[in-house]
This record gives sequence, structure tokens and C-alpha cells, in this order.
Amino acid sequence: MKILDTKNVTIPGFKAWGIHSGIKKNGKKDLAIIFSDREAAMAGVFTRNRVKAACVLLDTARVKSGKGQAIVVNSGCANACTGKRGLADGRATAEIAARDLGIKPEAVYVASTGVIGEFLPMEKIEVGISTAAGLLSATGWEQTAEAIMTTDLYPKLSVVQEVIGGKTVTIAGIAKGSGMIHPNMATMLCFIVTDANISSTMLKKSLLLSTERSFNAITVDGDMSTNDMVLCMANGAAGNKRPGVGSKDSKKFQACLDTVARALAKQVVKDGEGATKFVEIEVRNARNPGEAKRAAMTVAKSSLVKTALFGEDANWGRIMAALGYSGIEMDEAKTDIYIGETKLVEKGLGQGKQADRDAALALKQREVRIVIDLHKGKSSATVWTCDLSGEYVKINAAYRN
Amino acid sequence: MKILDTKNVTIPGFKAWGIHSGIKKNGKKDLAIIFSDREAAMAGVFTRNRVKAACVLLDTARVKSGKGQAIVVNSGCANACTGKRGLADGRATAEIAARDLGIKPEAVYVASTGVIGEFLPMEKIEVGISTAAGLLSATGWEQTAEAIMTTDLYPKLSVVQEVIGGKTVTIAGIAKGSGMIHPNMATMLCFIVTDANISSTMLKKSLLLSTERSFNAITVDGDMSTNDMVLCMANGAAGNKRPGVGSKDSKKFQACLDTVARALAKQVVKDGEGATKFVEIEVRNARNPGEAKRAAMTVAKSSLVKTALFGEDANWGRIMAALGYSGIEMDEAKTDIYIGETKLVEKGLGQGKQADRDAALALKQREVRIVIDLHKGKSSATVWTCDLSGEYVKINAAYRN
Repeated sequence: MKILDTKNVTIPGFKAWGIHSGIKKNGKKDLAIIFSDREAAMAGVFTRNRVKAACVLLDTARVKSGKGQAIVVNSGCANACTGKRGLADGRATAEIAARDLGIKPEAVYVASTGVIGEFLPMEKIEVGISTAAGLLSATGWEQTAEAIMTTDLYPKLSVVQEVIGGKTVTIAGIAKGSGMIHPNMATMLCFIVTDANISSTMLKKSLLLSTERSFNAITVDGDMSTNDMVLCMANGAAGNKRPGVGSKDSKKFQACLDTVARALAKQVVKDGEGATKFVEIEVRNARNPGEAKRAAMTVAKSSLVKTALFGEDANWGRIMAALGYSGIEMDEAKTDIYIGETKLVEKGLGQGKQADRDAALALKQREVRIVIDLHKGKSSATVWTCDLSGEYVKINAAYRN
Repeated sequence: MKILDTKNVTIPGFKAWGIHSGIKKNGKKDLAIIFSDREAAMAGVFTRNRVKAACVLLDTARVKSGKGQAIVVNSGCANACTGKRGLADGRATAEIAARDLGIKPEAVYVASTGVIGEFLPMEKIEVGISTAAGLLSATGWEQTAEAIMTTDLYPKLSVVQEVIGGKTVTIAGIAKGSGMIHPNMATMLCFIVTDANISSTMLKKSLLLSTERSFNAITVDGDMSTNDMVLCMANGAAGNKRPGVGSKDSKKFQACLDTVARALAKQVVKDGEGATKFVEIEVRNARNPGEAKRAAMTVAKSSLVKTALFGEDANWGRIMAALGYSGIEMDEAKTDIYIGETKLVEKGLGQGKQADRDAALALKQREVRIVIDLHKGKSSATVWTCDLSGEYVKINAAYRN
């Protein structure tokens, strides 16, 4: 597998572009189209929030066909909690795009992100779609990644290449964060495209696995969004032989998808609202994988742990307290905690002032690694999170202003 | 029921006092004793965190007797995650107090709050206990409430009187918050004393009910502590006839206990770390009481809801999103949301700019009321929380400094 520079990247058979259509008041890009020149296999993973945006409802129904050819995304307005009118607006968006792109409406997927409870400005969207459709470019991925941003500070892209079925296949993804980030599931928007020739069944299975290992292993603020989705299109332009179930090629494809999804998930956390630190939390030797992940996520979510990280204070008692209320089987007297290279806690007990100081030094870095060894079984899990800063509060107190 | 001024209040048969023993570096009070002149009925409710402080372990065992005569509390050091030495220190604390008070060690309960992972400074505690025991006073409740504070800005007391079994009975409580506040259960320290003559069985039952209606209905930051406990002592000094099970008197007692516990719980939220607003959230017409409470607590815990409250922004989409991921049965298209007197959302849809403005005005108040009507059943629940401010982050980033 080769990790590519994302600058001016192209994916055979795909075009994309992003523009400002007028949804956002600040003049920033807010509408994008991703287009495949031929029908593609399509898979999707969607938020498990009971309150689902119109786009989630529409795409969930559409993806059952396993096929698609275009995605229209807007930022600035979530089209969530908008009832029947929201659904009609979502459907109309797909119809407008289908007309301008010369394809069937059912082949168009829609995605929205932004403020909940407001209606899409359909006139602006109609003009915007026509403009974007006219500008579609094979190298338009940075513009597209920019157009799907809300409070993100930078666009998020990841691209890899791999030889699969005798051909070089490219897999590229873009994503946006950066608040309301918590499983399940995707907790953001992510669009992955590939020229691989692969069945929609295998694509769906692979995407579910990758999502579990990436977007469902991150948390920024513990709030699950109404609009989250990961869509993945595979148009077969590479002309490779289709990987068979359980084949070496299917494993290679999975590894590529995992890499792209994980790279994007980490970028989402790094760009978490107000984040000053990127924190990896690994729980080792839990009784089972579910408990390992639950423990890691509970620590990653704790406001007290996150503010201590922001304050660069190796306050391990808060980690232990979070483990204690995570609901997993654990035993304080067996638990070790490391921050960076420092063993801060052994068998439930602090290791003294020097360990405290060493851990505090590790916390001064931009990237922090915490390892928790439960000594209860053989399962591990790793999750990623960020700290909780005053800036997070500032961003979210004034979000709609 | 009469609600009394807490100033110089006395409870027949009880004495208390709080002093600075040297545990806290800033010279503030950090050790207190509560003492009954006779053996009392005793009940307790303790944290459900798997990581339990030494005091929680000791008191959980002791309270099985249903009896007690004294409580020793220290702040500044939680004596949690301190292993065998922590347990021995807790036991020694009770023994020292028993010696100085002339009672059995098993009649002494201990409670600690403060930094996790540090050992109790036993020499200071020994001197402190002797000093406090010598100063015990019938009017020492304010000093005592002060000595159990950590990041609290003010001491928390509540006192009521009621005629029960032909006698005037006093019920008084003190509590401390103000971070790591989230059920289950008490998420803080609370000590309630009464001169009522009541069986330890009824006392325990009543305390469980009151806790569910008060301390288990509040959240500040969603972090469950290792040290939380509510202890309740009833020494019978009022000489009333014992209330029978299901009697009018037992209901009166329950109402008094509820009032004291709820008043203290609300004070804890009002004094939540960094809090600028006190927020009451009522969920109506849920399918059952469990779902009503779960929905209310999920909204109360959401960082995005809490930052919007801090920003005085009526961003109801975040409330809807939180309801959606709360795991309860709900239907967006049936849900109404009120802020203050304003119906902001009807059947899942926003009610326009004027409603937005009216709700924003209500959010400018120090006390905010949010009502969510699910139209799904007949059960209601009310919880209390505060907003999430930059000050919370500041306090918790620097807690151990």
C-alpha cells in the first residue's frame, strides 16, 4: 500500500467540485458534488440517532440498491428536524442534480451538515448545483473537502494506492468534523471513492468494518449527530478482477479502506472543536473486545479527564474513576496506567512524585498516548480523542451567531 | 412542614464542628466531626462506581448494623485508589475519633473528598480530630458544612421541622459538590441528621427514595465519583412515637427528607463548577418513568446543550439530537419543546423567529426551565443541571495545582 500526497490527486472516473452557493453567511464554500462517470457500487453507514436528518432517511433507502453515481453535499444547514418539507427538499436536491448531471434521481445521494431546525434555501441550492456541476474537475477534491466544512479549521483528505486484482487501485476519502463527534456511528460526514471493481456486498461489509475501527473509535464531545454518514462509491474504472470473499485481494482492499478511514478519523479528532491535544487511549487485557472499547471510550469521554489533559495535569485518579463507572469488569488493584512512557500507576497505586513529573512532561506534547492495562483478559482496543478547552465552550456557546 | 433558617440551627442531641487540620494547603477548613450524644439509627447510600474510596468500603460494611454515633469527614484528600494503606488509614481515623469521643470504633463513619491517589496525612488527622472533638458545638453546622467543601464556592445547608408522632422533629442536612457530579448515585457528600425516632429499616428505605428524587436527578459534568455518599443519622432525641410502615407520619417524614435532599441537590447544581445558570429539565409524557428520566438526563448531560445554555442560544436542535441518542422511544414529529414560557418546537418543528427571540430572552435569566413533551405515554421526570462554561474548564485544568 502506498500513501499518496493529497494535493491535486485524481481518482479514475471521478470528478468533484465545491463552491459557495449562499447557504453560509460568511462567503465560505458550502456546496459540493461528487460524480462518477459511470454507475458505481455504493455502500453507506448512517447515524444511529433516532432523530435522523432528511438526507439520512433518503440515503438509507437509496443505498439498499447498492448503486449510485453522485453525491450532493451542503454545509451550513443540516436539514434535520425539518419534517415533510425537509424530506421534499432533500428529494428535490437530488432531482436538480440528476437533471444537471444527466443521470437518474435515484443515483444521487444527498448529505447535509450545519444548524439543525432550519430549511434548505432551495433557490440558492438549485443555482449552486448547476454552477458546481459545470465546474466538476478530476482534481477538485480539495475544493470539495473545503465545501463540506462547518467549524473545521482545515479540509480533511486521505488517499492510498494498492495493486488489487492485477491493477493499481486508488482509494480516496474526504471528511468533516468537528463537533457532535461521538459514535455510533460515523459522527460526521465522510465520502470515500475508489476506482476499484468490487461487489456492493463486499463494499458494504468492508465499510462497516472500517467504520468500526475508525469513526466509531473517536469522540470529541460525546454528542451523537443527526446527520452522520459515511458513503463509499466504487466505480470499477481500474478494471481489476473482482476480489473474491476471503481472498488476499479482499484483505488488501480492507486494509486500504481501514487506512483511509482511520487517517480521516484521526484528522477529525485533531481538528476537534477547541482541541489542543490529540490523545490516543489504549485499553489492554480487558475481558472482551466490547469491554476494552467501552472502557477506552468512557475515559475518552470524561470531561474531567479531558480538562486535566488540557491542563497538562497527570491526574490519573480521574482515569481510574472513569474506568470504575464505565460498567466493565475491572479491579482497581490490578490496573496499571501509563502516560507516554511513564508507568504512572501500578496495581492501582500511584508511583510517586518522579513518575508524576515524567507523565506531566509527556502531557506537554501535542500528541499524548495513554495505556491502561486491566490485567483481566486478552482483549485490547484503541480510541482517539482530544482535550476539552475553554475554546470548545466559546465555539459552541456562539455557534448560531 | 416548616423550612427553617439555617443560621445557628440546632438539632437536639447532635453536635458538630469543622476546623483546618493542614490537609489543604490553602489554610481552609478540611476536617469535621458530626456527633450524636446517643446511639442513632443510621442509613447510607453510596457511589456505584466500581472504584470505591476506602471510606465507601468501610461505611458500606458498617452501615449494615443500622447503627452509628459519629461521622468524621475530611476534604482535600479523597483517600481513593490508595489500596490497603488507604483502608488502614480509614480504619485508624475511626479509631482515633472513637477514642476522643469515648465511643466504639464501629459507631464511627468516615468520609473523604478531594484529590484521588494520595494518602491521608495521618498525623495531621490525629491532631485535627482531637481539636475538632474538643470544639464540638450544637450550633456548629455552618463550620461543618464549610469544612467538607472542595471547589464549592459556598457551604450548603437545609433544615426543616415537622410534627411527627406528636413531637416537633428537626431534619437538617449539609452537602458538598461541585465537580464529578453525576449519578449513580449521590455524586457528592451529604450528611443528614434528625432527632426523629425512626427504625433503621424505615430510615434506609426513605433515604433511598429521597436520593433517587434528588441527588440522582442532578448532573454537573457526567463524571461519577469514587467517594460519593449520603449518610443519614436519626437519634430519636425528639421522643416521638415511631412512625409505622405506610402511616401518615412516615409520609410526613419522607416529605421532610425529600425536601432537605432536594434543596441540597439543587444547591450542588447551582454551585456546579463554573456554572452561570441553574437549569431545570422536565420530560413529560414518556412511555415510562425510566425513559422520562433517561431522556431528561441525556439532555442535561449534553456538552452541546450545556454550552448553548451558557451562550444563551435557544439552539433546540441540540436538545432534539440528545433526545434522539438517549436510547428512549421517541418520535421527532410528536415532540414539543418549551424554554421558559415559550413553545419553541411543536411536533418536531421550530416555531419561527419570534419564538426563538422569546426563548433567548428566557435564557438570559439565572434560572432556566426547559420542558420536553414526548407525547408518547404518561410518565414524567425532572432533573437539574447547570451550563458548561469556560470557567469549568479553567477550574478542572488546574485542580491539583
